[in-house]
Amino acid sequence: MSQNDETSAFDLATAVRRAEGSALQVDLDPTWDVGNGILNGGYLLATAGRAAVLESPHEHPVAMSASYLRAGAGGPATLAVTPGPAGRTLAHSLVTLADDGGPVITVQATTATLVEGPSEYSSPMPDVPGPDQCLDMAANAHLAAVPIQLPGLTRHVESRLDPATAMWALGRPSEDPVLRAWVRFADGRPADPLSLLLFADVLPPTSFATGRMGWAPTVQLQVLVRALPAPGWCLVEARASEIAGGWSDEDYRIWDSTGRLVAQSRQLARTAR
Amino acid sequence: MSQNDETSAFDLATAVRRAEGSALQVDLDPTWDVGNGILNGGYLLATAGRAAVLESPHEHPVAMSASYLRAGAGGPATLAVTPGPAGRTLAHSLVTLADDGGPVITVQATTATLVEGPSEYSSPMPDVPGPDQCLDMAANAHLAAVPIQLPGLTRHVESRLDPATAMWALGRPSEDPVLRAWVRFADGRPADPLSLLLFADVLPPTSFATGRMGWAPTVQLQVLVRALPAPGWCLVEARASEIAGGWSDEDYRIWDSTGRLVAQSRQLARTAR
Repeated sequence: MSQNDETSAFDLATAVRRAEGSALQVDLDPTWDVGNGILNGGYLLATAGRAAVLESPHEHPVAMSASYLRAGAGGPATLAVTPGPAGRTLAHSLVTLADDGGPVITVQATTATLVEGPSEYSSPMPDVPGPDQCLDMAANAHLAAVPIQLPGLTRHVESRLDPATAMWALGRPSEDPVLRAWVRFADGRPADPLSLLLFADVLPPTSFATGRMGWAPTVQLQVLVRALPAPGWCLVEARASEIAGGWSDEDYRIWDSTGRLVAQSRQLARTAR
Repeated sequence: MSQNDETSAFDLATAVRRAEGSALQVDLDPTWDVGNGILNGGYLLATAGRAAVLESPHEHPVAMSASYLRAGAGGPATLAVTPGPAGRTLAHSLVTLADDGGPVITVQATTATLVEGPSEYSSPMPDVPGPDQCLDMAANAHLAAVPIQLPGLTRHVESRLDPATAMWALGRPSEDPVLRAWVRFADGRPADPLSLLLFADVLPPTSFATGRMGWAPTVQLQVLVRALPAPGWCLVEARASEIAGGWSDEDYRIWDSTGRLVAQSRQLARTAR
């Protein structure tokens, strides 16, 4: 099963169309939520990425920095793309995704055209058991020692949690705010640069690893897409480095199935109460 | 010697004033350059941070994401701040710094008010010898095995390179694209959140560590300021994680003299030719 066209759930949910008068529109799909109908920040960013690419001479979002102005919900939304300088190597633009209530996210977008080719240097993938030896949270949620919400996002993106970072689910939280998981689309759609924007915000808050559950709203998120991912599972590692005063960071590195670093992200978030 | 007012070089060089009609203006100081009069990206970002704070109910830049549209040079510039949602915890805005040639950087700015208080979790500082046991590049440039340019920036910010990441200067490059250095203002001005925006882009490209010299222009840079820095030296660690196809990242972590993580940054850059 492999889908990379308009029939995959991700492509349907991020389908940006040009309406009359050249404005871009999208129907935000409420099933890409992190709970209570609040849309996942990576899903919103991927939608903005699709708009940026549509208005660019280049194919791929390589650097996307978004401010999250308020929580996004399902329904119609517009995407305004203000072009910046564009050249042979890269192009800049500013993307604003807005719904009836006003702007939801504003994004500095840099697009470029990534090509196949080897790394001169690539940070090695951490040593993690294969997906079959990792924990399918969605399938085992009923066994967990702590209540685990399964938001819509978990139906679209399969994840297999590294057992070394999954002890919190068994009631034995860690001192380290780190989560690692293999991820892929549930419908078999291969990963590409646009989907890496989603994967860069796909795990629960790293505070889960330390036993603190709850939503941690994203304030500002930067994603760098570094290479075209190979087919198969991606390994995602999320790590917090400083938690204080109601603020946390979430630092992601994503490797493809060949062990190449394909994306990095960092977000500032409010901590769960 | 301690300066934290309008007489410090940093405060003078980033002094933003309100001109007639409420536009903000700055005289960009050509001596904050990285060579050939090209201004340091952190200096430009700190200037934008000062404008964001001026137009915000909050005191500190906590998340700043900038697209670098073209190289900046010394001379008069304007700062246009478009306010976004603002609340008790944080405020969003978009800042555009432009000179006679048009926009130089556009910045998603998030401001907030950081307060003193302990960390719940803080990534530990790496084990580095004290500043007195580290290498003063500026004072020893004439001894280096490879030609080292000393741009204007190195006169404003003192740095002491960790000997473990300084072997390239002796003609023995490393395989690891990592640099670590103690930094502080040469005139004794204490560090604060605004100056961390500068320190988050203050080291040479990490490609220097692997023996590849040359300018690596910043494409997009995000800086998170996580805490009020204590007086004294800051330790800066810069690391590249993926180098391929003419692109590199530069990932910074900055600790204050008490060992607390006070800032993080990540940039996408073009690699030196």
